[in-house]
Amino acid sequence: MSDLHTIPLIPQFPLYRVGEEFARVRAAAPLVHCLSNEVVQSITANVLLALGASPAMIVAEEEVAEFAAMADALLINVGTLYPARLLAMQKAVTAANAAHTPWVLDPVAAGVLAYRTDALHDLLLQKPAVIRGNASEIMALAGESASGKGVDSTASSVLAIAAAQRLALQTGAIVAVTGEADYVSDGVSTWAIPWGHVLMTRVVGTGCALSAVVAAFVAGAPDKLVAVAAACAVMAIAGERAESACDGPGTFLPAFLDALYIMQPAMLKAVDE
Amino acid sequence: MSDLHTIPLIPQFPLYRVGEEFARVRAAAPLVHCLSNEVVQSITANVLLALGASPAMIVAEEEVAEFAAMADALLINVGTLYPARLLAMQKAVTAANAAHTPWVLDPVAAGVLAYRTDALHDLLLQKPAVIRGNASEIMALAGESASGKGVDSTASSVLAIAAAQRLALQTGAIVAVTGEADYVSDGVSTWAIPWGHVLMTRVVGTGCALSAVVAAFVAGAPDKLVAVAAACAVMAIAGERAESACDGPGTFLPAFLDALYIMQPAMLKAVDE
Amino acid sequence: MSDLHTIPLIPQFPLYRVGEEFARVRAAAPLVHCLSNEVVQSITANVLLALGASPAMIVAEEEVAEFAAMADALLINVGTLYPARLLAMQKAVTAANAAHTPWVLDPVAAGVLAYRTDALHDLLLQKPAVIRGNASEIMALAGESASGKGVDSTASSVLAIAAAQRLALQTGAIVAVTGEADYVSDGVSTWAIPWGHVLMTRVVGTGCALSAVVAAFVAGAPDKLVAVAAACAVMAIAGERAESACDGPGTFLPAFLDALYIMQPAMLKAVDE
Repeated sequence: MSDLHTIPLIPQFPLYRVGEEFARVRAAAPLVHCLSNEVVQSITANVLLALGASPAMIVAEEEVAEFAAMADALLINVGTLYPARLLAMQKAVTAANAAHTPWVLDPVAAGVLAYRTDALHDLLLQKPAVIRGNASEIMALAGESASGKGVDSTASSVLAIAAAQRLALQTGAIVAVTGEADYVSDGVSTWAIPWGHVLMTRVVGTGCALSAVVAAFVAGAPDKLVAVAAACAVMAIAGERAESACDGPGTFLPAFLDALYIMQPAMLKAVDE
Repeated sequence: MSDLHTIPLIPQFPLYRVGEEFARVRAAAPLVHCLSNEVVQSITANVLLALGASPAMIVAEEEVAEFAAMADALLINVGTLYPARLLAMQKAVTAANAAHTPWVLDPVAAGVLAYRTDALHDLLLQKPAVIRGNASEIMALAGESASGKGVDSTASSVLAIAAAQRLALQTGAIVAVTGEADYVSDGVSTWAIPWGHVLMTRVVGTGCALSAVVAAFVAGAPDKLVAVAAACAVMAIAGERAESACDGPGTFLPAFLDALYIMQPAMLKAVDE
Repeated sequence: MSDLHTIPLIPQFPLYRVGEEFARVRAAAPLVHCLSNEVVQSITANVLLALGASPAMIVAEEEVAEFAAMADALLINVGTLYPARLLAMQKAVTAANAAHTPWVLDPVAAGVLAYRTDALHDLLLQKPAVIRGNASEIMALAGESASGKGVDSTASSVLAIAAAQRLALQTGAIVAVTGEADYVSDGVSTWAIPWGHVLMTRVVGTGCALSAVVAAFVAGAPDKLVAVAAACAVMAIAGERAESACDGPGTFLPAFLDALYIMQPAMLKAVDE
């Protein structure tokens, strides 16, 4: 926390652009091919459905290439990685790249375990459109020594802004580092998404689901940086609304899905301040 | 929609028969062996438990034959198919048939991807008691060219009635094509289940869970066509009740499980009209 | 039920000790490595998060040994066992033992199917710190002939007290047999946790999540018997509170997670009676 005075001033992403991007995604209803982890597939699908997108979890080596080419975006999440699933992910990524389908990498627990960290470094070479992780994960991928407590970050997102910018320049991806505030960067420009959502850290899969939403927003996006920032903002705003309507993490999740479903792009402009 | 004038008049399934079937299932508390997909196992189990049935997800090649023979019904759902799981499904089906355990096929994304479509055509030869799918899936299995957007149907259920009837005659199975209205056919007789449940399409696994409920109803059923129609009706009625008690897809799911749990067979007679 | 007069008088676990143990766990925020089944991973993670612990599902043979050594406790649940996952479990257990990480065994459907029953007997030789199961499972592991209906018990927990005591003496583990009341024994001393939670049997994964909570409580515990009894008590008390705030099993789960999150160790002393 004593490092806070060294943090550059990051501009806040404007709410009217959230509304524009959200309107685009809801109209397009993108088909998102999800290769995610065993724990969060249900919440991931429900978040995409509430948003207005179409999730599809196609996981077999025999099917992923065919499907990645017909999907509008691909999500790769290594939370419960094992060799057969990693092989499917690699085939899906190759097919997505060949078909110019953008893909998003969620590097769960990067830096904590050698097997997945090696796999992630291989995947980074395959040109993800976006990398979305917590501070520990982004710092680990950027070559810093921070590592998480299991799948949770041990660092604040604000301390990973420089790592996010460096990782973006290294990989050519948009990098989103999320936490109590979110920061999204292409290495040159960086946006802050400051809306809060404390209870989300006590519900499994909210970060993983955000990566899927990022995939939905980056599908066909005219400006990927703007799309990713808007995806983070939509989730953060829904999180704030849900928190005001719940008693704890149990009632948060239904309220959060309702908030995503009810949210209207036009409403986002009106409440800007 | 311009084809609507060619649709035959399908009689509505009578509510008193829903009550009779539901009473039978609740008294029997059937043990349902589920080989379903990675995304929906939790909602599938919770729906069966709320209904009064006993779900069991037994998935290993080493165990499925032993378990399919002791279960009252078997569910096969190919949503996240891969070779090891397909092998387990085939062993389970063979054992179920040998033990005269009825089994239900949920052909997720049939026609969209070659690997699963081939696997489904092999499974169709193994005499499922019931096939439950959306319009795109049923049309694809019946040999029509319609294919879905990922796992979602691109066609209305009413346009798949003829395909359902044909598929029933081809396979000897009861075929249920579900959507904004459900149609259940043995190829000769067909029932309509018109009760609505729009939000169910924004909650992952409601269709997959319906297939598990169909398995519970078909266990020991004196009349399989009636059992399948009643299963669709129970889910549709619970969906209507939940929709009137929720704010969106998030609060829909808890309300839906409560509605299934609270529903009494005797009540279904009273509200018939 | 005619055997009830032969049941020894089991003392009720005192509520103030629940509060002490809960305070210890919440302060420690233990990292729990979960190798659980496909159906319940989401509820397991959400229960641990609501409690204040850190869940991590690391499942690959390539990663489990490294992670079991850095976790504070390990959970092994055989609900959807298959060979690759069993191999990962065995590696995780070996690494946990080498690192003196306590591990908890949840023997889902022990005695029902030969493959898992054999695997469980091998795992029992690896010195679990705790075994948590329903009456049928504990009786089967203790060498009695009772077997469940699928994954559900066909016997009352009170009838498995003697089996739990014998299994504890045979294995050196604390044994918890849970049901309408829970009994926790080290073979010599036995506690009863009588608080009720009928709806929990209609929500999938509450028993499996309890095993994960037991792992969180046994991490660094000064007295394992007390820790396990307190874990059962916290879940039972949260279950009672949730039941008074819900309409059925659907609204039970959100209310249950909220109750766990809201519960304060200091409150538990006050309501003792």
